[in-house]
Amino acid sequence: MQNRLVLTASVTREEALRYTPAGIPVLEMWLAHGSRQREAGLDRDVRCEIQAVMVGEAGRKFAGRVAGQVLTFEGFLSQRSLRNPRLVLHIESAEFVKG
Amino acid sequence: MQNRLVLTASVTREEALRYTPAGIPVLEMWLAHGSRQREAGLDRDVRCEIQAVMVGEAGRKFAGRVAGQVLTFEGFLSQRSLRNPRLVLHIESAEFVKG
Repeated sequence: MQNRLVLTASVTREEALRYTPAGIPVLEMWLAHGSRQREAGLDRDVRCEIQAVMVGEAGRKFAGRVAGQVLTFEGFLSQRSLRNPRLVLHIESAEFVKG
Repeated sequence: MQNRLVLTASVTREEALRYTPAGIPVLEMWLAHGSRQREAGLDRDVRCEIQAVMVGEAGRKFAGRVAGQVLTFEGFLSQRSLRNPRLVLHIESAEFVKG
């Protein structure tokens, strides 16, 4: 059951680092992606926005450092909650893209 | 600018094959994914649903064959349209998962 997204995106909004009741760091952010992709032999401009979250030590490590930056994110997709089907990227790793 | 999703999912709905005015086949479908992912050292159940589209010859090849089936899809994410930010997976390749 594969679920793997690799996305290069700019961070349009970064929330303040928060902690779960169990003390796990949680960093929420919003990503905007734009690129050119080939589909059925034709180039097309692609845009998307997606909410993302870093849970655990990575959240603490990146907190305060990503707003306005471009990174390549890797992780899995999940719906936001049982009742909210909106997609959220759970980031497992991230790397700054050199400008 | 990477944008690559690999997702194993069941096809909960398959539309009838249609064609663009230029004669390109378009197959729209809805996918449901469920899996167990590890996040910050803890296992969590993950679910998501996403609309997907196959454009081009792949759409014709898979038309009428995917409803109710489980496949591993690979492609890129895009928003549905300029005015609709909902995410859609543009499928570039798909493979049936053996039951």
